Amino acid sequence: MEKSPIVFLTDFGLKDAYAGILKGVVASISPQTSTMDLSHEVSAQDILQGSFLLATSFSYFPKGSVFCVVVDPGVGSDRKAICIKTEDYYFVGPDNGVLWEAASRNKIKGMIHLTNAAYFLNPVSNTFHGRDIFASVAAHISKGFNDITLFGKPLESCVKYEFPRIGEGRDSLELCVIHIDRFGNLILNIEHESFNRFVQGREFSLSINGERISKVFSHYAQARDRELFLIASSSSHMEISLRNSNAALALQAVCLDKATLIKKLRSS
Amino acid sequence: MEKSPIVFLTDFGLKDAYAGILKGVVASISPQTSTMDLSHEVSAQDILQGSFLLATSFSYFPKGSVFCVVVDPGVGSDRKAICIKTEDYYFVGPDNGVLWEAASRNKIKGMIHLTNAAYFLNPVSNTFHGRDIFASVAAHISKGFNDITLFGKPLESCVKYEFPRIGEGRDSLELCVIHIDRFGNLILNIEHESFNRFVQGREFSLSINGERISKVFSHYAQARDRELFLIASSSSHMEISLRNSNAALALQAVCLDKATLIKKLRSS
Amino acid sequence: MEKSPIVFLTDFGLKDAYAGILKGVVASISPQTSTMDLSHEVSAQDILQGSFLLATSFSYFPKGSVFCVVVDPGVGSDRKAICIKTEDYYFVGPDNGVLWEAASRNKIKGMIHLTNAAYFLNPVSNTFHGRDIFASVAAHISKGFNDITLFGKPLESCVKYEFPRIGEGRDSLELCVIHIDRFGNLILNIEHESFNRFVQGREFSLSINGERISKVFSHYAQARDRELFLIASSSSHMEISLRNSNAALALQAVCLDKATLIKKLRSS
Repeated sequence: MEKSPIVFLTDFGLKDAYAGILKGVVASISPQTSTMDLSHEVSAQDILQGSFLLATSFSYFPKGSVFCVVVDPGVGSDRKAICIKTEDYYFVGPDNGVLWEAASRNKIKGMIHLTNAAYFLNPVSNTFHGRDIFASVAAHISKGFNDITLFGKPLESCVKYEFPRIGEGRDSLELCVIHIDRFGNLILNIEHESFNRFVQGREFSLSINGERISKVFSHYAQARDRELFLIASSSSHMEISLRNSNAALALQAVCLDKATLIKKLRSS
Repeated sequence: MEKSPIVFLTDFGLKDAYAGILKGVVASISPQTSTMDLSHEVSAQDILQGSFLLATSFSYFPKGSVFCVVVDPGVGSDRKAICIKTEDYYFVGPDNGVLWEAASRNKIKGMIHLTNAAYFLNPVSNTFHGRDIFASVAAHISKGFNDITLFGKPLESCVKYEFPRIGEGRDSLELCVIHIDRFGNLILNIEHESFNRFVQGREFSLSINGERISKVFSHYAQARDRELFLIASSSSHMEISLRNSNAALALQAVCLDKATLIKKLRSS
Repeated sequence: MEKSPIVFLTDFGLKDAYAGILKGVVASISPQTSTMDLSHEVSAQDILQGSFLLATSFSYFPKGSVFCVVVDPGVGSDRKAICIKTEDYYFVGPDNGVLWEAASRNKIKGMIHLTNAAYFLNPVSNTFHGRDIFASVAAHISKGFNDITLFGKPLESCVKYEFPRIGEGRDSLELCVIHIDRFGNLILNIEHESFNRFVQGREFSLSINGERISKVFSHYAQARDRELFLIASSSSHMEISLRNSNAALALQAVCLDKATLIKKLRSS
């Protein structure tokens, strides 16, 4: 029988052996499980970034996939280690909210506080639960232990971390940057359907860091060289892009920067 | 039956989830296909770099491998999505030339304009054809759909991007840097056989950015500490190296920098 | 039969195709072998770093794993290519000491000078033995050729590279930094058991680069924001950490920096 793949998302980077060790742990417990990397380059301890990458990616993986997420500033403290079972997936990681945006989009079926040390490495360190708990539990799930109540005690609730909400004015929306990708594109906390519903095909103006953007294109090459514009990103959020260049550098933008979207009621 | 592996080459970087999503798409369509990464760190939109990495690497992969290449500044525009079938491999990617140097070295058997949406994800975005078209088609090829005419319409020609040609003088060659590796080695657009044929074992002088190089060694450790020298690189091109240091930094060299090779007719 | 996995550790980086090519070579020779990456981001030619990552990680991989290590400044010179068989693992790489700390912790059973070109790629370059020798031999081992005497001549000894020793004074230890991880944590050349035996629960003072550290915590979140402290790292070595920040930057520390540990004989 095909084993469920395990998908890793961590802030370990690739310079150290931490990410590699996770795979060694999985291969030791369940040799036939295949593993994939969503990213190991989440900025250190950045729960928003981890949350964004997971929430906008999980649905492209096979049903049954086990996401093993290690963005875990509280490792070794009393923050819980948890597993969330959803309609189609398993999410294993720390109870600091990083799993929430993804899991809540896929109908949560149950949550477990991981307490059963029989499924952990022995001993469990205080500094690397990714290795000693999360990868080990993920490997056991993939191996076929798919009744998550084996791993600990049912939880009624967990820490919820949500993307910043849109502020709604009468003819304006207060948005913010929730992710900056390697091309310097700025991903906003508004999906393109909501954007279209708000703008209704009229003229608009998006202000961010002293610049104004008034064009939306359907693909990158529509823009002139060095033109700032909006586009529906591949994650379905609206994205600010700078043709043939890097919008984040040009706008000196960082995550959580504000952007104000105003619709013009009458085309001028 | 063993599935053909899929080999990825992109400019997505590893900070975002883009590269991971490609694997999720493949695993969803063809769970038993193994995937490998040639690199995801091609400089953004750099077709020369992508072209070099692909052309100098593909032959080390198993016959039947499917190369899924996403260096794609024109995504969503009218640039075509294509598949090239060669003697031993499949190359899937944008029709911007990035596949050409590799494919043309392996006897092209057919080219297809990818138009059959039955083999794409649904919907197809305007910003991420790597996910919605290229990875999806590659997965179907790996799964066993190896008649590429299924995927679209035969093409008579495609965009050809070739490495810069060598300029030939009477006793000199005008070369250029076509790649800089992580060690700072400068790879030139001349293969070592052509170099040997030109120099014929005599003295030579290679000028680049104000420096002259007159030695060729067979392995790195032959050079003195901090000595600049030529060597046959592992890709069979000649390479400028600086012992125990970084030639690119020392010469302030970038891709496409010129280098003049002069052979001395009489050894002095 | 399950093939032994191959685990790569190199200083190739991920920008070039070198790491990808290693996997192509393995897949060509032994298509069913799974491969894992310990890291490809060892600093160029840094044998201490490669040695540290390997020695502190290998035991988390399945028994039978083949470690293919390419940190190889002497490639093409007369440095030997070797394979070390230990109680549970195979280590393949250059004879420059990088394999020693790991192999010697797992009971060495035999060492071979790799000389049998029947198991190499043909031709063998002078610049990329990772591809032409190490990956090729590793793939043959994984494929089932587990009698390493096939690959060359038995060796009586190999180059030994050991972590710097602890200097022992009457009431002090001279330590040094042997690794800096992506979070800026400074890993010291003392294991936490030795640390505990020396300090015996009393007060201590660790001096490094003009700063003094006198606290040891069991997990990161115990420290106050921006507090410097010691902690048992996941590799079992003691580690200097700076809460919510980067100890290496704050202390301007680099590998091999000295640190003096003094125990206070009477609590003051």
